[in-house]
Amino acid sequence: MTSAFQASQPYLEATLEMVDLARRLIRQKMADGFEVHTKPDGTFVTDADMEAETLLRKRIVERFPDHGIVGEEFPARHPESPFQWVLDPVDGTLSFTRGIPLFGVIVSLHHEGKPVCGVIDHPGLDLRVWAGAGLGAYRNGTRISLPDLPAEVALESEIIATGDRNHFCKGGKGDAFDRLVTGHPQVRTYADCFGHTMAVSGSVGAMVDYGLRWWDFSATELLVREAGGRFVTTGSRQDEGGLRYNIIFGKPRVVDAIVTLMQEPAGT
Amino acid sequence: MTSAFQASQPYLEATLEMVDLARRLIRQKMADGFEVHTKPDGTFVTDADMEAETLLRKRIVERFPDHGIVGEEFPARHPESPFQWVLDPVDGTLSFTRGIPLFGVIVSLHHEGKPVCGVIDHPGLDLRVWAGAGLGAYRNGTRISLPDLPAEVALESEIIATGDRNHFCKGGKGDAFDRLVTGHPQVRTYADCFGHTMAVSGSVGAMVDYGLRWWDFSATELLVREAGGRFVTTGSRQDEGGLRYNIIFGKPRVVDAIVTLMQEPAGT
Repeated sequence: MTSAFQASQPYLEATLEMVDLARRLIRQKMADGFEVHTKPDGTFVTDADMEAETLLRKRIVERFPDHGIVGEEFPARHPESPFQWVLDPVDGTLSFTRGIPLFGVIVSLHHEGKPVCGVIDHPGLDLRVWAGAGLGAYRNGTRISLPDLPAEVALESEIIATGDRNHFCKGGKGDAFDRLVTGHPQVRTYADCFGHTMAVSGSVGAMVDYGLRWWDFSATELLVREAGGRFVTTGSRQDEGGLRYNIIFGKPRVVDAIVTLMQEPAGT
Repeated sequence: MTSAFQASQPYLEATLEMVDLARRLIRQKMADGFEVHTKPDGTFVTDADMEAETLLRKRIVERFPDHGIVGEEFPARHPESPFQWVLDPVDGTLSFTRGIPLFGVIVSLHHEGKPVCGVIDHPGLDLRVWAGAGLGAYRNGTRISLPDLPAEVALESEIIATGDRNHFCKGGKGDAFDRLVTGHPQVRTYADCFGHTMAVSGSVGAMVDYGLRWWDFSATELLVREAGGRFVTTGSRQDEGGLRYNIIFGKPRVVDAIVTLMQEPAGT
């Protein structure tokens, strides 16, 4: 039997190589400028998103012609394949268009539904996290471990990251956002994958992110688990564009406490 | 009469030079590690804060021996001088200690209460904004102008940045924070000077930041005004450590609308 290490290592290396190319393209677009278009759902797309996804797809098709691809901007390829790449070429397009450097590139590979490897790269921050199944999780080359919060450390000392409140509203949970920000003293809206990077590497205690599409967090579960953290899906909801997921992840004790805080109050 | 340009240019150059040194010191501390201490008020200080402020003070004393200095970590010097330097060597120490790269160095100079020049530098982001009186405002070398939001663009399309809710509570205004996040669809807690950098350079429409000490925003008013934006102090409150200020700043039309939104509801 092939070990998880032997199985995921070459895929992780291929993923890091293609993310290097996407980072270079996006940095060039940041320097040269880009066009912004509004999509039918009111969100934005730029030629940087489109060209980065095209570049990533091209590399995958060259190296792994039988693999499936799911991306935010183009139709799915080979949906029947056991191998599925999931791409979000610019996660946080609104931030990207405004010059807020917290957006990122998310690429992951899954085999029969199980994560093989995943990367979140921030071209505007010189910051990257990655993980391979059985290989551990890394932030800019340093192995990440998410030590649980010691029992004597107050939960209140931990920063909790969240997505934008209007994302919670898309998941039907605007009131849950309000309960979080009034129920915990240090909550910061680190929208999109910047919050994921902060939570999977322990810079914040946990992230609460509601109303997400699959590609918004396709690398996150593996990153958290390989770092020794906890990842919980607390709900999902179907809308016109497919499923939206509500997730909470980070240091185990913090995640447990926040899951309890986020539960519906009795009687509602 | 000396023009504002002639008067502020050499001070701005001196400020940028000393901020370069502080950035280098802080980046070295990020790489090598640092010690974290808890201050009597429960906030943190590190040897990076202390050494960066010591370095900045030493440069000021060498070049401008008669000038006053106000800094977060050490007693004031020459409080009677018409020239006052205001230093926050690590604004966002909590972020700095957790590996969240959004903290910054703030240095400004004031003459008889009027700002001469100001810099916010982000050593973890390769990002800097600066301004001199009459010289304009710049972000990484590009001149900033804050064009007002055209009348046909909906205010809802603009991101509003805020500080942490517990800072609003220090200013006695936790309810004002809640009114903001439920009253505007895109509010992000870009705590500390990262939000200031985003607002003074137009990446967000405005920032609402309550419960601040003077050194937290000593560069901000000049940056906003030199960029063509609006800066409003909506209140202040005395506590055991001195005055805390509530400020709103950014694109003029957005600031006006948010000032209205933040006003106490009638009858309270």
